[in-house]
Amino acid sequence: MLAAARAEFAARGFDAVTLRRVAARARVDPAMVTHHFGSKSGLFRAALDVSLDPATEIAAVLPGPLDELAARLLGRLLVLWDSPAGAATIAAVRTALQDEDGTALLRDLLLSQVLRPLAAALPGPEAERRWRVELVASQVAGLLLTRYVLRLEPLASAGHPAVVTALGPTLQRYLTGPLAPASVEP
Amino acid sequence: MLAAARAEFAARGFDAVTLRRVAARARVDPAMVTHHFGSKSGLFRAALDVSLDPATEIAAVLPGPLDELAARLLGRLLVLWDSPAGAATIAAVRTALQDEDGTALLRDLLLSQVLRPLAAALPGPEAERRWRVELVASQVAGLLLTRYVLRLEPLASAGHPAVVTALGPTLQRYLTGPLAPASVEP
Repeated sequence: MLAAARAEFAARGFDAVTLRRVAARARVDPAMVTHHFGSKSGLFRAALDVSLDPATEIAAVLPGPLDELAARLLGRLLVLWDSPAGAATIAAVRTALQDEDGTALLRDLLLSQVLRPLAAALPGPEAERRWRVELVASQVAGLLLTRYVLRLEPLASAGHPAVVTALGPTLQRYLTGPLAPASVEP
Repeated sequence: MLAAARAEFAARGFDAVTLRRVAARARVDPAMVTHHFGSKSGLFRAALDVSLDPATEIAAVLPGPLDELAARLLGRLLVLWDSPAGAATIAAVRTALQDEDGTALLRDLLLSQVLRPLAAALPGPEAERRWRVELVASQVAGLLLTRYVLRLEPLASAGHPAVVTALGPTLQRYLTGPLAPASVEP
């Protein structure tokens, strides 16, 4: 079932995949897919071997003042990534980046489970919100790469407050701050 | 020679490797290593299959006002990465990240050829300068990952001015701006 799921997600993208179609490809009953993985999102994360549920984590940091969202988001990410489940997720991300199929799955996971829910919580026009959350992704992905994969020191050993103090204002500006004169919006 | 170089760099790190030792491992004359690769840095980049010379690129953006360094750096990076040599370098980076040896080589390349020269151009105490350039690395590495590897839209297709306007202030703050109260320095 996981092999069928990986093939379907890679070929069609998260939105177009149905549990029924994955079941058909795996030659099992659709009820069996639901029984084992609960939902399309659960199947997707199992296919990517990502043990954390990003949508749940995003939902957990959204409540609260919007002007402190960056600090909540970053604080939560650091706790997660420094946990055993986070280390497994980072390893899965690294594996996924090795080929185009895995990279496409990862992009879909990010867009559907993280960036869209985050964008939905921001004010403003949709195009601007999409731009803002991708800027956030660009800083967060780089923190993951430099702190946990490349393990650059002193960043790899820095305490959470130091990281939040340094990167928090960046993320908050991307989320809600002034970004650009209109002439250079993408 | 390249296999010997990869093994030496992975085992010892950039600083400890000598051309003589690589030649000995490859069972060739040291002059032959120099003839083919010019220098330890050239051999290192050949071992990683990185066609751009990061040290040269860094040296090219350092001259000029310090408070515009971020814009020069980011503008240059975007031109490089959007070039054929840049695409090859990004592919090499992606390959290097697949295993621990490649990741260690990449970390050494970043530290010795990019971050140290960049840190040397900044004012302030050494520990602070090292922290600042790693924050820069965290944003730049994430831009590479999201724009060129994950190809998140609209970021992947955004024009250079839009990217520089959005990320430039972040990098300039990391390079020369206020970062943190002293109590949360790492």
